[in-house]
Amino acid sequence: MLGLMQDWPLLCHRIIDHAARIHAGREVVTRSVEGPIHRTNYAEIRGRALKLAQRLDRQGIRLGDRVATLAWNTWRHLEAWYGIMGIGAVCHTVNPRLFPDQIAWIINHATDRIVMTDITFVPILEKIAGKLASVERYVVLTDGAHMPRTSLKNAVAYEDWIAEADGDFAWKTFDENTAAAMCYTSGTTGDPKGVVYSHRSNVLHSMIVNNADALGAGSKDTLLPVVPLFHANSWGTAFSAPSMGTRLVMPGARLDGASVYELLSDEKVTFAAGVPTVWLMLLQHMETDNLRLPDLKVVICGGSAMPRSIIKAFDDMGIEVRHAWGMTEMSPRGTVGALQGAFSHLKGDARLDRLQMQGYAPFMVEMKLTDDAGKELPWDGKTPGRLKVRGPAISAAYYRVDDSILDADGFFDTGDVATLDSYGYLRITDRSKDVIKSGGEWISSIDLENLAVGHPKVAEAAVIGVPHPKWGERPLLIVHVKPGESVTREEILDFMDGKIARWWMPDDVAFVDSIPHTATGKILKAALREKFKGS
Amino acid sequence: MLGLMQDWPLLCHRIIDHAARIHAGREVVTRSVEGPIHRTNYAEIRGRALKLAQRLDRQGIRLGDRVATLAWNTWRHLEAWYGIMGIGAVCHTVNPRLFPDQIAWIINHATDRIVMTDITFVPILEKIAGKLASVERYVVLTDGAHMPRTSLKNAVAYEDWIAEADGDFAWKTFDENTAAAMCYTSGTTGDPKGVVYSHRSNVLHSMIVNNADALGAGSKDTLLPVVPLFHANSWGTAFSAPSMGTRLVMPGARLDGASVYELLSDEKVTFAAGVPTVWLMLLQHMETDNLRLPDLKVVICGGSAMPRSIIKAFDDMGIEVRHAWGMTEMSPRGTVGALQGAFSHLKGDARLDRLQMQGYAPFMVEMKLTDDAGKELPWDGKTPGRLKVRGPAISAAYYRVDDSILDADGFFDTGDVATLDSYGYLRITDRSKDVIKSGGEWISSIDLENLAVGHPKVAEAAVIGVPHPKWGERPLLIVHVKPGESVTREEILDFMDGKIARWWMPDDVAFVDSIPHTATGKILKAALREKFKGS
Ligand SMILES: Nc1ncnc2c1ncn2[C@@H]1O[C@H](COP(=O)(O)OP(=O)(O)OP(=O)(O)O)[C@@H](O)[C@H]1O
Ligand SMILES: Nc1ncnc2c1ncn2[C@@H]1O[C@H](COP(=O)(O)OP(=O)(O)OP(=O)(O)O)[C@@H](O)[C@H]1O
Ligand SMILES: [Mg+2]
Ligand SMILES: [Mg+2]
Repeated sequence: MLGLMQDWPLLCHRIIDHAARIHAGREVVTRSVEGPIHRTNYAEIRGRALKLAQRLDRQGIRLGDRVATLAWNTWRHLEAWYGIMGIGAVCHTVNPRLFPDQIAWIINHATDRIVMTDITFVPILEKIAGKLASVERYVVLTDGAHMPRTSLKNAVAYEDWIAEADGDFAWKTFDENTAAAMCYTSGTTGDPKGVVYSHRSNVLHSMIVNNADALGAGSKDTLLPVVPLFHANSWGTAFSAPSMGTRLVMPGARLDGASVYELLSDEKVTFAAGVPTVWLMLLQHMETDNLRLPDLKVVICGGSAMPRSIIKAFDDMGIEVRHAWGMTEMSPRGTVGALQGAFSHLKGDARLDRLQMQGYAPFMVEMKLTDDAGKELPWDGKTPGRLKVRGPAISAAYYRVDDSILDADGFFDTGDVATLDSYGYLRITDRSKDVIKSGGEWISSIDLENLAVGHPKVAEAAVIGVPHPKWGERPLLIVHVKPGESVTREEILDFMDGKIARWWMPDDVAFVDSIPHTATGKILKAALREKFKGS
Repeated sequence: MLGLMQDWPLLCHRIIDHAARIHAGREVVTRSVEGPIHRTNYAEIRGRALKLAQRLDRQGIRLGDRVATLAWNTWRHLEAWYGIMGIGAVCHTVNPRLFPDQIAWIINHATDRIVMTDITFVPILEKIAGKLASVERYVVLTDGAHMPRTSLKNAVAYEDWIAEADGDFAWKTFDENTAAAMCYTSGTTGDPKGVVYSHRSNVLHSMIVNNADALGAGSKDTLLPVVPLFHANSWGTAFSAPSMGTRLVMPGARLDGASVYELLSDEKVTFAAGVPTVWLMLLQHMETDNLRLPDLKVVICGGSAMPRSIIKAFDDMGIEVRHAWGMTEMSPRGTVGALQGAFSHLKGDARLDRLQMQGYAPFMVEMKLTDDAGKELPWDGKTPGRLKVRGPAISAAYYRVDDSILDADGFFDTGDVATLDSYGYLRITDRSKDVIKSGGEWISSIDLENLAVGHPKVAEAAVIGVPHPKWGERPLLIVHVKPGESVTREEILDFMDGKIARWWMPDDVAFVDSIPHTATGKILKAALREKFKGS
C-alpha cells in the first residue's frame, strides 16, 4: 500500500523559487571581485538565474551537460549555480587554487562544455586553455566595463551574455535523482575524485543543515559563508540560506582577517562558516586591535581539525563554536559539534575537550567503526577504527570510476580513522593513509599535532610515520616555528612529555620553514613522507 | 545523467534508530494514563517498538495492513507508531473524542485489523465492537495489573503481548513511498476523509518542522506536544523530536490548565505545541495564581485561529508565540508564524497584528490564491481567494476515494479562504463553505468572530451567513456569554461599530448557552446553520 501524498520531486531550483516568493527582498551582499560592495536580493537572483538558464538552453546546453565555475563567493556565482542546475545541467565547481595542471585534468575529466570564471582566474585559464578540448566558451563573471582582453575562446562578459535573454523561461522538471552538481575531492591523498550530487541529495542535505544543532540559521539571521562555493558544495550554505530566507553575505576574493572582520561587523553577521585558517586569521586581526563581534552568534569550523586555541577564543567571547567534520563525498556534512543537552553545562577544560571533538552525526548520516577486516568496533570513545558512513547525501560512486566504493551493507569508507563515544561524538585521529603503526598499535598523528601546536613558539606541526626496524614505524614530528622565534628539539619534547603515553613520543623533531598544503589548506603528508623518506 | 549518491530510502523507523544511537539516554517523560509520571528514553523506546514490530509480524500483520490506535500521548503510543510503521504496516490514529458512530465508521472504512487502545477508551470500543468486523484483536496499552475486564475480542495487555517477543528482530525495508500512517480529517465540513501519509512524506515533514522558524527544537530542548498523536499526525512532533534528540514530555490524558502547567514547570519544558483552547486553559490557570514559566521559549498554536488575547499574554511574558496553520492533508504544517527579519522589531499593536496572521509557508510548501474560476489572485494582503497548496507532504488523494483532488497544476484546494501578502504571510478569513457573500462581496466570518470575542463579556462567538432577499446573505452573530455576565445586542454591536466596514456589521445577534464543536474543538458551523435556518 502506497501513501497518497503528492509527487513533488526535490529539485534545487525550487529552493530559489521559494526564496524569491517568500523572502523576495532579503539581501545578498557581496564584496565584489571588482571592488565595491554589491547588494541584491533573492527575487533578483532568481530572475537573473532564469535568464542564465535560458541563455544556456539557447546555447544548446542540455540535461546532464557539465558547466564549470571557477569563482569566488559572489551573487553571480550563486546565480550560476541555480541557473545551471535549473535546466538539469551539472554545475561543476572547480577549485581555482589547485595547480593549473590539476585544473586542466579536472575540467577534462568532467568534459565541461562551458567554463564560467571570475576575472581573477582568466590568466590561469589562458595558460591551460589549449589543453581544454571540451570547452566551447568562457563566460567571465563580470560586466562589459570590467571585461578583460583575453584570448579565451568565445569569451563573453556574463552581464552581456545574460542580457541576451529576456527571462521569459521556466525551469525544467526532471527526476530528483538527476545530477545537479559535481565537485572533485581536495586531492590530499591522491588524485581528486569526482563526486556527483543529485538534486535530491542537495535538497535533503540543505534540510540537515537547517536543523537547530547543525547550522540552524533562520529568516532573521545573516550568514557569511567564508567557505567557498567551490569547496565541498559550500557546506550546503548555497541551498540552506535561501531555503530559510537567511540574509547572505558573500566575501568575494578577500578572505584575510581584516576583510572578513569588516564584513562580519558592518553587516551584523550572526552565523559564519569556514576552515580553521580563516578563523585563525580573523582572531589574530581582532586581537591586535582588541575588536569585538557582538552580533555573531555561531561559528562553524571544519575541513580540518580545529585547534583548541581557536575554540577557546570564540567560546570566551560568548560565540558558540561548532566543530564540524565532513567530506566532499558527504555533501559535505558528516557531523556537527553543537553541544548535546548532556554537555551544555560543562565548563573549563571539560567543555573545551568536548568542543574539540568533531561533534556527532545528524539524522540521515549513519556511522559505523570497523577494524581492517570489517568487524564492527565499540563506540567507547577509546577504540579507533575505520569510519564508515551511509546516507542519502553520501557518495555511492565516483565519476567515471567503475569500482564500487560501498561495502556489503552500503557503507562508504571515509578513509578517516576515528573513535566514537556512546553519545555519537566523533574524534578524528587520523587518515587511514597517515596512521602510524608502532609495535602493532596505532598512534594518532592528529593528537600529536594538536599537542605540538599548543607550544607557544610553534606555528604549525605535522607528524608522519617513518620506518623503524623494531617497531615497524615511529612518529616524526615536523615543526614550523613562529616568525621571529627559535626553539629546540628538547624544549618541544619536554613540553609534550607527560601529556601523552610515553610510547607515543616522537623519536625526533625536524624543523622546516614551511609545511606543504593542499589547495584547501590541508597538510600534504604524502609530500612530507616523500621528503623525509630517508629519516 | 544521474547523481552518484546513495540510495537511502526515507523511512520513519530510521528516525528512532538515529535517536537510539545518538541520543540513547534522552528522556521521554509521560503522565501515564494509570496516574504516575513514567520515565523512559529513546533507546528503550526503540527496543520496545522492535518487540512490538516482531509481535505484530508474528500475528501476521503485513505490509499495508492497518493497525489503529485510540490513545493519549504516552511513551507506549509512541512505541506503537514506530513498531507499526517499522514493518510497513499503517498506523491509523483514531480520534477518541469523535462520536462512537464516527469512530466505528472510520475503523470500518480503514478496515483496521488490530486496535490498540488506552484503558480510557475500552468502554467506548465495547459499545461499538459488534460493528467492527475487520478487527481481529484489541491490545490495551497498559500492563497486566491495570488490565480491565473486557468483552473486547482477544483483548490483551500491551505489556504482556510484547513480552512474548524477544526483540531479536530487524525493521523491514521498502520503498519510501510506502504508506506509513493514516489519519482522518476532523469532519468539520462533512464526513472525515482518510489521509494516507507515506514514509517519505513523514520524514520530509519532520525536516520542515526542524527548521529554525518552524519548530526548530534541538538536542538541548524539551518539547511538550499537547497536540495529540491522534490529531493531524501530531504536527510532526513524534518524528521531529527523536530526529533531533529533543527531550519529550507527554501529557497523557490530562490536558487541563493545572496539569499542563505542572508538566511545563516541573519538567522545564522549552517548546510546546497545541490548539488555542489548551493555551486558554493554561493562561487562565496561570493568571489565578500569578504563575510564571521561565524555561518556556516557544509556543506553537494552531488548528484554529489564535485569539489575540492569547498571543498578547505569551508575548508579554517573553515567550515566543508562533501561530501555525495547517491541515490533516498537509502532514499538517502549512505555515509557521515566526516573525521574519523584516518584522522582528515590531512593537505594540503592529507586532500583535503580525503575530495574529497565520505565518508563512516553509520551503516544500507552495501556495497559490485563486478565484472560483481558478484564476490566480495577487499576494497583496487584501484580496481573499481560495488557498491552494502543493508539496511532498500534501495529499494527492483520499483513501478509497477515486476523484482526483488536485487541479491541473497539481495543487490541492485547502477549502480555506485567505489573503497572502508580499512576504507570504497568510490570513485565513474563512472556510470556503462558511464564507458569507453579501451583495456579491465576501465578508470574513473569522474577522467578525475575532472582533466579537474581544468584547470582555463574550466567551465565544460564531458568525454564519443567513439568506437575505436583497443581499443574498447577511451575517448573523451568535454569542455565548461568559458565565455570570449579561450583555445586550446593542452593547455588542456598539462595541464592533467603527472597527469594521459598515456593511460587514451583523444584522442580528443571537445568544446561545453553548456553541457546538467538533472533536478537535472547532466550531461546527453546519450545525449552527441548521439551527438558525429560519432566521
Ligand atoms: N573537523 C575535521 N577534523 C579533522 N579532519 C577533518 C575535519 N573536517 C574534514 N576533515 C578531513 O578532510 C577530509 C575531507 O576533505 P575533502 O573532501 O576536502 O578532500 P580530501 O579528503 O582532503 O582529499 P582526497 O579525498 O582527494 O584525498 C576528511 O576525510 C577528513 O580527513
Ligand atoms: N491557525 C489557524 N487559523 C485558522 N484556521 C485554522 C488554523 N489552523 C487550522 N485551521 C483550520 O483547520 C483546518 C484543518 O483542520 P483539520 O485537518 O483538523 O480538519 P477539518 O478541516 O477541520 O475537517 P474536515 O476537512 O473533515 O472538514 C484548516 O483547513 C483550517 O480551516
Ligand atoms: Mg577524501
Ligand atoms: Mg479540512
